Amino acid sequence: MSGRYVRNKQVKLKNYVSTVLKETDMEVQSCDIILDLKEGSKDDVLVKNLYLSCDPYMRIRMSGQNISHSPPFKVGQVLEGFGVSKVVLSNNPCFKPGDYVSSWTMWEEYSVIAGGERLEVVDPSFAPLSYYLGALGMPGFTAYVGLFEILKPKGGETIFVSAASGAVGQMVGQLAREAGLFVVGSAGSKQKVDLLRNKLGYDAAFNYKEEDDLVSALRTHCPRGIDMYFENVGGKVLDAVLENMNSFGRIAVSGMISQYDTDKKDGVFNLYKIISRRITIQGFLQSDYVHLWPKFMELMTGYLNASKVVYFEDFAQGLDNAPNAFCRLMSGEKIGKQIITVAEDY
Amino acid sequence: MSGRYVRNKQVKLKNYVSTVLKETDMEVQSCDIILDLKEGSKDDVLVKNLYLSCDPYMRIRMSGQNISHSPPFKVGQVLEGFGVSKVVLSNNPCFKPGDYVSSWTMWEEYSVIAGGERLEVVDPSFAPLSYYLGALGMPGFTAYVGLFEILKPKGGETIFVSAASGAVGQMVGQLAREAGLFVVGSAGSKQKVDLLRNKLGYDAAFNYKEEDDLVSALRTHCPRGIDMYFENVGGKVLDAVLENMNSFGRIAVSGMISQYDTDKKDGVFNLYKIISRRITIQGFLQSDYVHLWPKFMELMTGYLNASKVVYFEDFAQGLDNAPNAFCRLMSGEKIGKQIITVAEDY
Repeated sequence: MSGRYVRNKQVKLKNYVSTVLKETDMEVQSCDIILDLKEGSKDDVLVKNLYLSCDPYMRIRMSGQNISHSPPFKVGQVLEGFGVSKVVLSNNPCFKPGDYVSSWTMWEEYSVIAGGERLEVVDPSFAPLSYYLGALGMPGFTAYVGLFEILKPKGGETIFVSAASGAVGQMVGQLAREAGLFVVGSAGSKQKVDLLRNKLGYDAAFNYKEEDDLVSALRTHCPRGIDMYFENVGGKVLDAVLENMNSFGRIAVSGMISQYDTDKKDGVFNLYKIISRRITIQGFLQSDYVHLWPKFMELMTGYLNASKVVYFEDFAQGLDNAPNAFCRLMSGEKIGKQIITVAEDY
Repeated sequence: MSGRYVRNKQVKLKNYVSTVLKETDMEVQSCDIILDLKEGSKDDVLVKNLYLSCDPYMRIRMSGQNISHSPPFKVGQVLEGFGVSKVVLSNNPCFKPGDYVSSWTMWEEYSVIAGGERLEVVDPSFAPLSYYLGALGMPGFTAYVGLFEILKPKGGETIFVSAASGAVGQMVGQLAREAGLFVVGSAGSKQKVDLLRNKLGYDAAFNYKEEDDLVSALRTHCPRGIDMYFENVGGKVLDAVLENMNSFGRIAVSGMISQYDTDKKDGVFNLYKIISRRITIQGFLQSDYVHLWPKFMELMTGYLNASKVVYFEDFAQGLDNAPNAFCRLMSGEKIGKQIITVAEDY
């Protein structure tokens, strides 16, 4: 042990959350750590975290219930999630100090990644580092898998995307547009709807909070009905979609964010419509499709290089603002992908 | 026109039904008709109806809303459905007087089938004629399609079937047993549950009306979880199933009878579970798979010949009892396939 002492600020879960998440359900604490790797810690990597990803599934892990694919967070423990980091020290032949890596890391300044697991070197010259948490990361890949592996679009079909300017939704919309589909999105503010219409190339878009009758709104904006629905929100929107689905429609369920941050879940009442219309509803996780990652990266880097795809991010500065950033994700106040900048790269 | 006058008793829809169906929502009336085919009525066939099928989807057609695959019934019109009939007169070269046919016919004693459409000659020596409305008819084919085309079982998996002794359910259970699955069923009376356990070869069965906690009941009876669910009922049962589904589980939605005969639909609250467990829910209609009919008939006649499969039916005698029979279908009082015997064969 020969490293220097540094402060390590951390974001911890303070208590399990059963209703609406508040900033005070998390707490930010600092401790001092020695910047070193234990002797004999084979393959471990010490990283400095630069960007952390705020993702809706993390809210489920805060409930204390074992209902996510990932186990519940524990009270008092540092939160865990996707990040982009810089290697400080490495006992792992695959990584050397100074490497930038996409990581499965902790919400803190410095993390030891045991065995270097789930680290992957990323190229900071190709795209902003934060893109590896979005367009070139899990959300982008979720969009790719849901669209091409689950929904399997045919040219000219109509796709509806909820949370359409979010981390995943904005990629679904753009990939769908490039695939020649009629693309309709909903979001929760005028600013987001403007983004959908003017920057993300949606053919039609509306603010679901301003519609008394979601069924009619969808009918208006999807004049040929809905062939595919990329489901990010659940609840009332799903019911309205079911009313507007065409025969042999497909629904890819990526998330149901409206159901995560509440103790009053919405019932879905129109499910019976899937019989006469022969609708398929499929839940999926991108992690089952990692074999497609190279294909995804090829497509997405091509689109980014050709400026065919853009990506919107919302940065919170510093771990002190992380609880607020995560609450903004859940309340829908952020615009685009919510990211926490832990440190500027130096 | 040279035929004789006969009485033609008919069952008509008296009014649209928005809550629980009553016998008085239908009415039985008689008129006199001439037993003849109009001159020049090319390909028409006049049949005497012997057996009529009571099917839950017909209840949806009584609501007046355009929500079934088939259009709503009209008030004052004779009900329409599957039947087994005997040809009386024929202008159609494919059918001759005396032929027994499975038919798409009307709830009356004599019907003219325009163009002989959807008539198919059936063999009364092979199986009881009523079987062509059940084991060898639409319900049997629905079971076959749902199990083999939608659920696609792998040996050793657990399948749960609701309405498990019903027209479709009893066939699903027996086909699943023959396919080497662990087969669990629910039904709404002790007598039905006895049937499931002792005659239909279910590995486990329970009376859902006697269970306060359906989630626990399913956990008990499906100790390895549920890989496949053949959905006939909807509502609360579906919610409890979602709690017990294994990863990569499949749900084939054939019907949701609990949601047809009520103005208070149940919400489904556990849909979000399909994400982390990667569950697929697929609505289907047997009519999309008619190309598989010969394969189905080959399998089913083989099973019936070898006495590997049995079939339970509940007969109501005469059209006067048809409204009561249909109400018994919806309330679950009948056991097995509900059939109306219009006339003994003579």
